[in-house]
Amino acid sequence: MAGNMRAIWKMEQKEGLLVGEAEIPKIKDDEVLIKVKATSICGTDRHIYKWDGWAQKRIGSRVPYIFGHEVSGEIVEMGKAVKGLEMGDHVSAETHISCGYCYQCKTGQEHICKNVKILGVDTNGTFAEYFALPYRNAWKNDKNIPHWVATAQEPLGNAVHTVFAGEVAGKTVFISGLGPIGVCAVALCKAAGADKVIASGTNEFRQKFAKDFGADILLNPKEQNVRKEVMDATNGEGVDVFLEMAGAPQSLNDGLAVTKAGGRVSILGVFPKPFEVDVSTDIVFRGITLHGINGRRMFDTWYKSASFLRSGAVKLEKLVTHRFKLDEIEKGFEALERKEAMKIVLEP
Amino acid sequence: MAGNMRAIWKMEQKEGLLVGEAEIPKIKDDEVLIKVKATSICGTDRHIYKWDGWAQKRIGSRVPYIFGHEVSGEIVEMGKAVKGLEMGDHVSAETHISCGYCYQCKTGQEHICKNVKILGVDTNGTFAEYFALPYRNAWKNDKNIPHWVATAQEPLGNAVHTVFAGEVAGKTVFISGLGPIGVCAVALCKAAGADKVIASGTNEFRQKFAKDFGADILLNPKEQNVRKEVMDATNGEGVDVFLEMAGAPQSLNDGLAVTKAGGRVSILGVFPKPFEVDVSTDIVFRGITLHGINGRRMFDTWYKSASFLRSGAVKLEKLVTHRFKLDEIEKGFEALERKEAMKIVLEP
Amino acid sequence: MAGNMRAIWKMEQKEGLLVGEAEIPKIKDDEVLIKVKATSICGTDRHIYKWDGWAQKRIGSRVPYIFGHEVSGEIVEMGKAVKGLEMGDHVSAETHISCGYCYQCKTGQEHICKNVKILGVDTNGTFAEYFALPYRNAWKNDKNIPHWVATAQEPLGNAVHTVFAGEVAGKTVFISGLGPIGVCAVALCKAAGADKVIASGTNEFRQKFAKDFGADILLNPKEQNVRKEVMDATNGEGVDVFLEMAGAPQSLNDGLAVTKAGGRVSILGVFPKPFEVDVSTDIVFRGITLHGINGRRMFDTWYKSASFLRSGAVKLEKLVTHRFKLDEIEKGFEALERKEAMKIVLEP
Amino acid sequence: MAGNMRAIWKMEQKEGLLVGEAEIPKIKDDEVLIKVKATSICGTDRHIYKWDGWAQKRIGSRVPYIFGHEVSGEIVEMGKAVKGLEMGDHVSAETHISCGYCYQCKTGQEHICKNVKILGVDTNGTFAEYFALPYRNAWKNDKNIPHWVATAQEPLGNAVHTVFAGEVAGKTVFISGLGPIGVCAVALCKAAGADKVIASGTNEFRQKFAKDFGADILLNPKEQNVRKEVMDATNGEGVDVFLEMAGAPQSLNDGLAVTKAGGRVSILGVFPKPFEVDVSTDIVFRGITLHGINGRRMFDTWYKSASFLRSGAVKLEKLVTHRFKLDEIEKGFEALERKEAMKIVLEP
Repeated sequence: MAGNMRAIWKMEQKEGLLVGEAEIPKIKDDEVLIKVKATSICGTDRHIYKWDGWAQKRIGSRVPYIFGHEVSGEIVEMGKAVKGLEMGDHVSAETHISCGYCYQCKTGQEHICKNVKILGVDTNGTFAEYFALPYRNAWKNDKNIPHWVATAQEPLGNAVHTVFAGEVAGKTVFISGLGPIGVCAVALCKAAGADKVIASGTNEFRQKFAKDFGADILLNPKEQNVRKEVMDATNGEGVDVFLEMAGAPQSLNDGLAVTKAGGRVSILGVFPKPFEVDVSTDIVFRGITLHGINGRRMFDTWYKSASFLRSGAVKLEKLVTHRFKLDEIEKGFEALERKEAMKIVLEP
Repeated sequence: MAGNMRAIWKMEQKEGLLVGEAEIPKIKDDEVLIKVKATSICGTDRHIYKWDGWAQKRIGSRVPYIFGHEVSGEIVEMGKAVKGLEMGDHVSAETHISCGYCYQCKTGQEHICKNVKILGVDTNGTFAEYFALPYRNAWKNDKNIPHWVATAQEPLGNAVHTVFAGEVAGKTVFISGLGPIGVCAVALCKAAGADKVIASGTNEFRQKFAKDFGADILLNPKEQNVRKEVMDATNGEGVDVFLEMAGAPQSLNDGLAVTKAGGRVSILGVFPKPFEVDVSTDIVFRGITLHGINGRRMFDTWYKSASFLRSGAVKLEKLVTHRFKLDEIEKGFEALERKEAMKIVLEP
Repeated sequence: MAGNMRAIWKMEQKEGLLVGEAEIPKIKDDEVLIKVKATSICGTDRHIYKWDGWAQKRIGSRVPYIFGHEVSGEIVEMGKAVKGLEMGDHVSAETHISCGYCYQCKTGQEHICKNVKILGVDTNGTFAEYFALPYRNAWKNDKNIPHWVATAQEPLGNAVHTVFAGEVAGKTVFISGLGPIGVCAVALCKAAGADKVIASGTNEFRQKFAKDFGADILLNPKEQNVRKEVMDATNGEGVDVFLEMAGAPQSLNDGLAVTKAGGRVSILGVFPKPFEVDVSTDIVFRGITLHGINGRRMFDTWYKSASFLRSGAVKLEKLVTHRFKLDEIEKGFEALERKEAMKIVLEP
Repeated sequence: MAGNMRAIWKMEQKEGLLVGEAEIPKIKDDEVLIKVKATSICGTDRHIYKWDGWAQKRIGSRVPYIFGHEVSGEIVEMGKAVKGLEMGDHVSAETHISCGYCYQCKTGQEHICKNVKILGVDTNGTFAEYFALPYRNAWKNDKNIPHWVATAQEPLGNAVHTVFAGEVAGKTVFISGLGPIGVCAVALCKAAGADKVIASGTNEFRQKFAKDFGADILLNPKEQNVRKEVMDATNGEGVDVFLEMAGAPQSLNDGLAVTKAGGRVSILGVFPKPFEVDVSTDIVFRGITLHGINGRRMFDTWYKSASFLRSGAVKLEKLVTHRFKLDEIEKGFEALERKEAMKIVLEP
């Protein structure tokens, strides 16, 4: 396919973006061309938009390029080496483009590939009318799921990966951090038979979503003593499982302190810099198992996400607080700035 | 059994000990009385002897009491509720005396019992001619193993628990900390088919033991750049498994940095206070699994230890650098002070 | 406590029972005396009542004795070695009375103790006003759960053990056999986020319960081609998980045939004798993992069961189709004979 | 590369082969052309040579084609889509050519791909001077390993997959079946710290290899009561792990009977037809976990195999009893017929 398309460019090494034009990408033999039906804004996109320290370091002089990576669309062209897909398939993108030949890739751990490239970070992304994707990264969606819902599957996948890094059925769970991923985690824990789900976050707008998605107890660390509240809610036993999704040192340390001896701690949150942890008291003496969680397992995580979407156990559509035209993307960043949004979807 | 016995007392809340007398303990229905044939000095005993911050906080005003907990002896008396043991059995002591009714105990995790008492720390211990032990804590030794060797099984057990918290066969392993536990870990990894074992410690006397027990590469963090050396030795891949047995912040951070994405980190080391960890870079982004290790699993760990003793794969007898009469215990602490000892055995 | 009580005796080595009297049991130091508030009839009790081949072989000449083992009651007396319990506690009985010193017991596998005794099979049981129980086998119930519901926790536990022998969240599950355990398994799978639950049984009365407990698809192997139906319902993929709870050769072979390559098969069903299995095609070539399931894990299973009871996710009270006075026990066996019952509760 | 090459053809649907010529294969974009340096004879090749029931059913009318699949060679040509390999690399072939898009492939289980093709069975194989292979199936060998040794890695891989389907360190293991895979399993168990390895096989020539590779006890089921011997050797406890590598009903049933309650049974053996198993007694009541094992995990298994080769723990070169020129292949089949061979290597 040839011609031009609308696209959102990160043009310069400073805050901002450009709504403009680009050539429709040419695909390689092992790629598919996807017509974007819906794309959504991730926290990562906000880092890129604001051009914060992370973006400066991670992207630097590779501008200009097209960003965005949460997406749902249709296959409109296929390279000759593509297998297992068809024209017209509805697909989302697994954003970790793995090398296929490093140790991690060759042992079923493509999500932590040593040479990974991230769609929309290291390559041109989905804030556009079309984008090219290696066919192995295309995830076929059920056509019954609207594109504006399916695009939010990527953060759901992060939640699935974190929640199911261990057992939750019959377990008490403490979730710290109530962005879209944290709220999905609440819904997943309830859908998977968790005993009691305690959720903690500072933003009242977002707390309502956690409540709506089934949290049994809501805490606000700005106003409450999280450690005391969790211990009280568990008869002094602490929780079986702690999911860190806030990326704040206090959050991790509070969570470790209220996890039962022998419990599980799974960390998805990203912390800006090193910080103090009481390794002996909080991890060693109490026999804690701790997992660092990155991306989504390919593609176990996607199969599970699809199942929870299909069953209706996770009502992803409720997370979409705003739908804009692609060209209106700056409205989306503004809503996020006002902390009055969960998931913002853009439709070309 | 009635009468008096020789015993080593921690008398006062200050450095030192008293070689004296005590009454032979009266046993309860569910206890056995064990005649001590050999008892050995653990790092914990040294904390108690020196009366450092840990000992002041952990033991405080409970002095005077008899300390010591690594032991091998013979059953000379049995309470009427005792099952599965016989008079004359050679036994060692699992030192974690668990309550039996907390959540951890009721789910196969007695080693992290919520109400645990430690033999020789919370109760009268084994630096004596006799001691009393709940029969469930008695581990029957093979009578072919001399008592002066069997007493060193307790630290071997810590090593077994740590090494086998995950897979080691065919894996590269980095072990930091070369006390008796670290050196046992080296031997175990080699005996269990580890690919390459890199061991790091600052004490040259102890490095020789690591070498003798099979370490493929020896590092000294005082003289070498540990991160560079480990990465070079693994073709830039990092190790599959990191075992922290030094209890030093730099050791943990170095080890995390050289663990392969998707790798395993098991921490047995005890760190005196909280310290900075780069959680995002070293744990989250690389999908690390980290275990805090405490005590020995009851009694999986002991079965495995016994197997490695029986097969000769771990030559525990080589770790015993000194054998003294019980009354000469201060000679043992002096040898440790000079850093010229591994395991010091006392025989009543 | 002294005196007489009502009790149901298996008197002779033939079909039948005797409603009579017995002495209230004297407890040992490590036992509690429990006043029975509700006790229920298990399939095992029916084998004993009917005196079939299993009962003849397993019990033989040990008659007369008091049978029954599913129970809920109150502690009215405690031996002096009892810990973690109080007078008046509501308790159920873990029926596997383990030795505590065999390999299995010493490695957290008491449920498959080499020297196990079963309450009400190898010892006097719960079809009485009182029974004695080792305190370690007493499970403390929430006092909010009526005794006539709590007694049905034992089969729920079998279901919990089987269902959670592997992962079910987001997985398709095929359950064959719809007695009380099979029906509980249906409810548990749904409560734990299973993707699609296909249940198969021949008894229409019981199929209704499976439907009511959430089965997505119901099959009757007498009327339908189970293999075809399951494959059709899973787009030709087969199920991720197969739970065998019927104890019929055809059921196991059908289930194996429809389990996806790499899938999990957990077998609780008891088969009267050896039978043909296509090991190569159905297990080896497709990389199946298969678990034999016996009893309940002590006490992980009980903690999980309690959680699902507390949350209301498994409505155990619906399974109780009949409540009789203890003396009316034969009415219970008659209802079972007519295949018009699920769980029958007896109240002294 | 163009031209002709020597090749071994399965010409007709009957016993036999043809030593002849073929065109050097043309490779696709994602394939490599490998110059065969050594190729070896697998049991599968013998089925094909003899044209037994399995071969008739599995291959049927797809003759003529070139068979063989165990190999080591050099890359002499690469398709343009190939990544992570270089000209001149020494490689072996993972023989399971997976589709890449089925459920199994997309969840890290390519070894049980739904649409798998087997090299040398479903496609032209390695009994030739050259063969074509998808680059993802090429395993890079250490250049220090001679080709005539590296070709035997494929059966070693089957052994690695089976042995490490669970834990062996400190465990007693019973291995039934002493072909090249069984003998490798013996060596691996010893190298990985197994407690005691009991090996059983009927061929005396092969028993010597098991002895040489470290078996602690050798049994011959034709002459001994295997069940009694294994129970005696384990003090009546039974083994922790049973590895079935004989593919005989009696072997599986004996092994199940001597596996400890809670033990692990991994089955690699292929059984010609269904047979009776005592599922209740041997699997259910004793809480056995059983795995069907097929192929090698891609590529965890290969990494582990490489490690054991590198360390010298498995002396694969000792298994090579015969080396012939490729054209002399019938001599190889004759040696196998006489039961005087382990691994037969052919060199073009």
